[in-house]
Amino acid sequence: MSVDEAIRELRYLPYSNLGFARVDHHRELRLGLPEAVYGPGKTAEQAAAIVAVLLERNVGAVIVTRATKSQFEAVAAVAPEAVFHEVPGLVVARSQPASGGQPVAVVSAGTADLAVAEEAAVTAEALGLGVERLYDVGVAGLHRLLDARGVLDRAAIVIVVAGMDGALASVVGGLVAAPVVAVPTSVGYGAGAGGIAPLLTMLNSCAPGVVAVNIDNGFGAAVFAAMMLRPRTP
Amino acid sequence: MSVDEAIRELRYLPYSNLGFARVDHHRELRLGLPEAVYGPGKTAEQAAAIVAVLLERNVGAVIVTRATKSQFEAVAAVAPEAVFHEVPGLVVARSQPASGGQPVAVVSAGTADLAVAEEAAVTAEALGLGVERLYDVGVAGLHRLLDARGVLDRAAIVIVVAGMDGALASVVGGLVAAPVVAVPTSVGYGAGAGGIAPLLTMLNSCAPGVVAVNIDNGFGAAVFAAMMLRPRTP
Amino acid sequence: MSVDEAIRELRYLPYSNLGFARVDHHRELRLGLPEAVYGPGKTAEQAAAIVAVLLERNVGAVIVTRATKSQFEAVAAVAPEAVFHEVPGLVVARSQPASGGQPVAVVSAGTADLAVAEEAAVTAEALGLGVERLYDVGVAGLHRLLDARGVLDRAAIVIVVAGMDGALASVVGGLVAAPVVAVPTSVGYGAGAGGIAPLLTMLNSCAPGVVAVNIDNGFGAAVFAAMMLRPRTP
Amino acid sequence: MSVDEAIRELRYLPYSNLGFARVDHHRELRLGLPEAVYGPGKTAEQAAAIVAVLLERNVGAVIVTRATKSQFEAVAAVAPEAVFHEVPGLVVARSQPASGGQPVAVVSAGTADLAVAEEAAVTAEALGLGVERLYDVGVAGLHRLLDARGVLDRAAIVIVVAGMDGALASVVGGLVAAPVVAVPTSVGYGAGAGGIAPLLTMLNSCAPGVVAVNIDNGFGAAVFAAMMLRPRTP
Amino acid sequence: MSVDEAIRELRYLPYSNLGFARVDHHRELRLGLPEAVYGPGKTAEQAAAIVAVLLERNVGAVIVTRATKSQFEAVAAVAPEAVFHEVPGLVVARSQPASGGQPVAVVSAGTADLAVAEEAAVTAEALGLGVERLYDVGVAGLHRLLDARGVLDRAAIVIVVAGMDGALASVVGGLVAAPVVAVPTSVGYGAGAGGIAPLLTMLNSCAPGVVAVNIDNGFGAAVFAAMMLRPRTP
Amino acid sequence: MSVDEAIRELRYLPYSNLGFARVDHHRELRLGLPEAVYGPGKTAEQAAAIVAVLLERNVGAVIVTRATKSQFEAVAAVAPEAVFHEVPGLVVARSQPASGGQPVAVVSAGTADLAVAEEAAVTAEALGLGVERLYDVGVAGLHRLLDARGVLDRAAIVIVVAGMDGALASVVGGLVAAPVVAVPTSVGYGAGAGGIAPLLTMLNSCAPGVVAVNIDNGFGAAVFAAMMLRPRTP
Amino acid sequence: MSVDEAIRELRYLPYSNLGFARVDHHRELRLGLPEAVYGPGKTAEQAAAIVAVLLERNVGAVIVTRATKSQFEAVAAVAPEAVFHEVPGLVVARSQPASGGQPVAVVSAGTADLAVAEEAAVTAEALGLGVERLYDVGVAGLHRLLDARGVLDRAAIVIVVAGMDGALASVVGGLVAAPVVAVPTSVGYGAGAGGIAPLLTMLNSCAPGVVAVNIDNGFGAAVFAAMMLRPRTP
Amino acid sequence: MSVDEAIRELRYLPYSNLGFARVDHHRELRLGLPEAVYGPGKTAEQAAAIVAVLLERNVGAVIVTRATKSQFEAVAAVAPEAVFHEVPGLVVARSQPASGGQPVAVVSAGTADLAVAEEAAVTAEALGLGVERLYDVGVAGLHRLLDARGVLDRAAIVIVVAGMDGALASVVGGLVAAPVVAVPTSVGYGAGAGGIAPLLTMLNSCAPGVVAVNIDNGFGAAVFAAMMLRPRTP
Repeated sequence: MSVDEAIRELRYLPYSNLGFARVDHHRELRLGLPEAVYGPGKTAEQAAAIVAVLLERNVGAVIVTRATKSQFEAVAAVAPEAVFHEVPGLVVARSQPASGGQPVAVVSAGTADLAVAEEAAVTAEALGLGVERLYDVGVAGLHRLLDARGVLDRAAIVIVVAGMDGALASVVGGLVAAPVVAVPTSVGYGAGAGGIAPLLTMLNSCAPGVVAVNIDNGFGAAVFAAMMLRPRTP
Repeated sequence: MSVDEAIRELRYLPYSNLGFARVDHHRELRLGLPEAVYGPGKTAEQAAAIVAVLLERNVGAVIVTRATKSQFEAVAAVAPEAVFHEVPGLVVARSQPASGGQPVAVVSAGTADLAVAEEAAVTAEALGLGVERLYDVGVAGLHRLLDARGVLDRAAIVIVVAGMDGALASVVGGLVAAPVVAVPTSVGYGAGAGGIAPLLTMLNSCAPGVVAVNIDNGFGAAVFAAMMLRPRTP
Repeated sequence: MSVDEAIRELRYLPYSNLGFARVDHHRELRLGLPEAVYGPGKTAEQAAAIVAVLLERNVGAVIVTRATKSQFEAVAAVAPEAVFHEVPGLVVARSQPASGGQPVAVVSAGTADLAVAEEAAVTAEALGLGVERLYDVGVAGLHRLLDARGVLDRAAIVIVVAGMDGALASVVGGLVAAPVVAVPTSVGYGAGAGGIAPLLTMLNSCAPGVVAVNIDNGFGAAVFAAMMLRPRTP
Repeated sequence: MSVDEAIRELRYLPYSNLGFARVDHHRELRLGLPEAVYGPGKTAEQAAAIVAVLLERNVGAVIVTRATKSQFEAVAAVAPEAVFHEVPGLVVARSQPASGGQPVAVVSAGTADLAVAEEAAVTAEALGLGVERLYDVGVAGLHRLLDARGVLDRAAIVIVVAGMDGALASVVGGLVAAPVVAVPTSVGYGAGAGGIAPLLTMLNSCAPGVVAVNIDNGFGAAVFAAMMLRPRTP
Repeated sequence: MSVDEAIRELRYLPYSNLGFARVDHHRELRLGLPEAVYGPGKTAEQAAAIVAVLLERNVGAVIVTRATKSQFEAVAAVAPEAVFHEVPGLVVARSQPASGGQPVAVVSAGTADLAVAEEAAVTAEALGLGVERLYDVGVAGLHRLLDARGVLDRAAIVIVVAGMDGALASVVGGLVAAPVVAVPTSVGYGAGAGGIAPLLTMLNSCAPGVVAVNIDNGFGAAVFAAMMLRPRTP
Repeated sequence: MSVDEAIRELRYLPYSNLGFARVDHHRELRLGLPEAVYGPGKTAEQAAAIVAVLLERNVGAVIVTRATKSQFEAVAAVAPEAVFHEVPGLVVARSQPASGGQPVAVVSAGTADLAVAEEAAVTAEALGLGVERLYDVGVAGLHRLLDARGVLDRAAIVIVVAGMDGALASVVGGLVAAPVVAVPTSVGYGAGAGGIAPLLTMLNSCAPGVVAVNIDNGFGAAVFAAMMLRPRTP
Repeated sequence: MSVDEAIRELRYLPYSNLGFARVDHHRELRLGLPEAVYGPGKTAEQAAAIVAVLLERNVGAVIVTRATKSQFEAVAAVAPEAVFHEVPGLVVARSQPASGGQPVAVVSAGTADLAVAEEAAVTAEALGLGVERLYDVGVAGLHRLLDARGVLDRAAIVIVVAGMDGALASVVGGLVAAPVVAVPTSVGYGAGAGGIAPLLTMLNSCAPGVVAVNIDNGFGAAVFAAMMLRPRTP
Repeated sequence: MSVDEAIRELRYLPYSNLGFARVDHHRELRLGLPEAVYGPGKTAEQAAAIVAVLLERNVGAVIVTRATKSQFEAVAAVAPEAVFHEVPGLVVARSQPASGGQPVAVVSAGTADLAVAEEAAVTAEALGLGVERLYDVGVAGLHRLLDARGVLDRAAIVIVVAGMDGALASVVGGLVAAPVVAVPTSVGYGAGAGGIAPLLTMLNSCAPGVVAVNIDNGFGAAVFAAMMLRPRTP
């Protein structure tokens, strides 16, 4: 049996059954990416236990999303090097080393989109990507965006984070040669509130090469970028 | 009783009862604008009869919206000077003379928005406004819009007509000093189809000074502009 | 290079990068209106810092919308003349001088719509417009509205603020010669709650010349009116 | 056993099983109203067979709603006195004699609402009610409605039929002492199309005493009025 | 001028302008029913001031809906005879004397619908109607309803209050000779939560003579019943 | 290797790749049920080819749902014994022999629900179940349903098919000891049209033991019943 | 009168009227299942009173769903053997003895679905069913599910509990021979939040034999299973 | 000025104004991709004229999407090498040469998804990508997908096309190391019809690395893949 076949087989193999969770520590091997722990609905102890298993069995990044301070503290007890990013509520228990290559640009429309943009940016950094941030460049003052075209031109992928009208994704999509992953945010009020308006805008973008993730899912956009940009060895 | 009082009283007075319709021929006096006839659901004869009453009793413009060819023909029998604009389905039975002043700019995102944009433009012309058209300048190719900034800068009001992502309204709203009346169109498909996506975009515009009318309502945007721009003699 | 060309060029120029925000202090020059600061999601310090930049670089009105008391206090430290309007949660850091001309009428249906109506009225005053208030004149007691027709007849624009059935916009639209900017409010409960019912009513108004802004967006209606009514020098 | 008890018992008794339908010919006895036949989805023969059973076993009115011409023709073969009302698509196979008393007012906003208004009016007449029609009196020209206040004041119940903004129900509800049964129609386009906008308006009416039926259900409003107004002998 | 004309004229006359509210104390004369005060969004003082004006100028019932305890206390200071019904949150500042005649039946599906049912029942009593309550008779145990048919048969109008599947309205509508006013409640969870499911059920009732009010609007159903059942003197 | 293990292994094995379809002819072995062919979007030839593969490789029933006449004809060419049920548009290419045991009751509310009810009934028969039909027994005439209680009491499962208010599912669920599979139909109009109203009613049923399938999915309800009722040999 | 007839008659008989509730203690006889008490909206005393009546008059299981700790304590005072399951908020006042036979498998996608899965599992156990739990086996790591195929193969019914994409129901439906009752959960955020996304997924499952209950209704799925699996004696 | 700067400048330059359209023939230079022509709403002549301009001025692929036969014929007159792909309605007027590298896998759930899958596959081929098709491998028969894991493992990006439950995207996302672009299709009926159900499923995918485009937008998914995979020369 060749190494290649063995690896392929392994892709369908083990996990740790903690009772309350079946931790898929072979996801890293299978997909090349660690399992992130989704914080809400887990006790601090559960979050920490899952992180402990992942740190022991995996070699890559380990992240807790939408984490509370107390979840961070429980994680820090088993992972002293863990860092808490308060605004997006993200615990990075272990980072992947920077992989070099073209950076990802994280672009946001308004200051109210900051938490989601940071969830994308911090996650991308934890996964080894270079990140350039470009915040508060919404289309109501287009010159702020045009002024920063250098950032956009350097990027391998542009993650556009916007609430309200979500128009920034289309404008960036029409300007840059890189593909755009659009993240609608739940910023705003009234009709289309909770992110429905920018989500629909982004799904209906008349610029080519724009795809979307769910509302406020900055994490998902960063993971997609990492899967896309890591070195592929077919 | 002063003339002023008399006019004010008249504002609440007569109409013609045709049986199937009560034609409000004093709307012109009251609001300074004629009653437009909404075509759908009316026989050609009914449309023509209403037009005839309006032409006889009013002095301003008389319009049939969303009209069919056969409605036009019936109207033309009672109003020989009537003109049929086929793409928006608009019969102009009588136009108001041009009132001069700054023009209205009618800006559209794609060629598929043409019918709605023309409904706005032809209506505005019939109501005596100057109109400058700027079509197919969607945000996916922003230089087409920037190239025509002269048109935008001259306008007293900009009517922005866009389907799909509707992002053009926000971009124009951030560029021009004139207020923007946004018209979402039912162009597009999938989630947010039928104009819901651009309507929500426009209602959530992060540019100041953007208001919206209902989906495909180019007529309404033009009437609003005319009410706003006609000479006011308080 | 002519002055005119220079001004046009300036329209696409600078902003202040505060790190967490790119303050567009040339919006005033470009659009003739200041950038209002949207309060939610900003710390009191951030709100105050943006206000300080705007006061220093701009000459017109400076406003914080949906502001908290503590945001007001931070702003007042950098702008001693700032005034806090508690009901709409509006900080006016600097007002534009009154520009004269026909007033704007702000008309509301019920006492529950007061906060939104006041957001519109106070903003309009801060932007230099004359304002006449006409509150609690919903269509369930039509004589209250008819009794105040003088106010309506004097207005250059009528801002109609209504929740629940939102019918007031159509009734006013049928009565007055001025165009109507309709503001649905989130007052009400049950089907269509959160302002959806009056928004749809207003978008479907059978009266001519009615446009809408998003739910509870009294600020937007006032800005639109100010852009429309300020002296234009083409 | 008293007559009263016998009648009460009968209320829960027989029906005719036609195979494709179980005709409830005791609904008349139980509810004091005949079973109307809902036309769509029935062959002309099925419609006629049900009508025949009802005519034979019941004594009151027999109606087919949303009927086609060919359904009418099949019905007419078994019920020579049947009348076809083409606009609402209503077959009246037998009418109840007029019961006198205060009339029902059927009020509609626009000519496009005619079919639904006529469904209500013709049904009410077939059920023995007096009917006064007041059509095309939408709130965009309020004087048309005020001009006909006599009709409204005479009515025992006012059925208000309106599409688009549906505002007429609230205005009538605020003017008249009679209760209002509101019928939204599917007239209109864009956001809230298909009758959703006027339905929400009517459910959120700020006038007291307004209830609603489903969109385009003129028949239901008339049946409710008939149940309410017939002589009650407890 | 006849008394009749005078009364008709009065219908369009005065109100009290309290600054924050225009109290329509002629609604009683015009519609035969007092203006109820909608509690939410009013200070206790505002509620009490409006009640005071109404008590002084009107002669009929005066009610505050969705009232808090502190609103009740402020009202009680100006209206010592006021009674607070805690479950529906209803203040009855003055009741109309009982008018006799057939009672209204208030029927509810489950104990969770109690507050809305009581809002309907207490309001109806305050407006002078006789009320029979029939609670917790949902269709999952049909014999509970059938057991109480006497109550249903005596009623002039049946108010059916139900959440979740809302099926009770159709079942009652098929059983009783009286018309049904259906009140959906916001009881329930999941798809159709917040009352949407029972509202749609009721609007689509296949029983004749069922009309609906908005979700949780027990007050509106009772007012409709009172308008319907009071002695009419045309 | 035991027979049991072999069978279990086979569950994950072969299919036929026709190019345009991968026919899963081991679904029968794995799930004990054949793959039904969904007609829409397939040419008559494609439908027939899939049927031919299934008839050859499987031993149980073979069905085409939502089939057209021309699809039937193409199928009949390869399966001479195929029967076409026109109202539900169902081709039964081969039936399973009747398995005996308690029957399934298929209950429908109105004649307009017939096609969906027949899709359920014919499918159930093709899968070897005994079926008792009970049609047009909606809750508006409850005695029709109570009259047929014998049918309900005999049933192992009751499939309730209803559009509009969908109340029949709750009423049956409260009456019978058998579990209820509810099928909402797209019959009806207005708010909740297309089957949304009865679907929500059924999901919110206050009777225990009611589950739902998608709108108009009579086929799915019958398959579920067959999976439930076939002899289980663990 | 035969015993059988007597039992059938009894099915339509008594209940206890507690004033605030009509306790249907013959539901057990009629449907073979006890009435569960829905906790929300009931005081602890009301819940306990209903439980007391049910324990005295019925012989089977008695359950309070969505119960609070204080409701449990009040129940425990009248039912000392009552057990509180904190995570699903379920009080089991009395269990049915285990009935033997094939177990029900309760399968959940993620740890966040635990409360709903436990509501299903504990209810099923209280109703006498054997239960096998299989938690945290979502499709993102398919090998966790495949690893536990033994559990799935043994089950008479599989209850699949999943939020977010709800894809687990379709995957299980394609793998197992037992029918699937799918329970969408309100886990998740953004578009389709509150359980709408998994509910739609489950209603549209392309696997045969999948039915759904309302969002988070683990209780309903277990009751359906119990009704299906108890010994039937026609 | 360096070549690099020149190219960057050019990115913001010319287009051809055809009157009815402003053809952006520098999009190719700016974004590295041609402007595709969206067929609906354009006459055959308009489509052909735009294609002619693009063929003349650009060097890459030229495509018309959702094209009719007559649009193809008009295009073929100006582009003799044009090919018509009938099922997706796609005209490829000129293809880009194959660029080599890892292929894109286009995976579809059912035969009804074929047209959308082919739109993605043909577009990707026209843009120079290698494509491997894997159709009709929906999760109801998981072994069909597992059998083809080789295709999935070779792919640089997997485009998953699925209607109804849309579950395939999550299952593929959990299996493969490549990122997934999910395309919901409008296949299906009932609740969630028109593609809403699979769109929500895909946005809520619990597998990492799944992004979505709008319903039926196979073209957009292919363009995104091409932008991602072409050789980048920063």
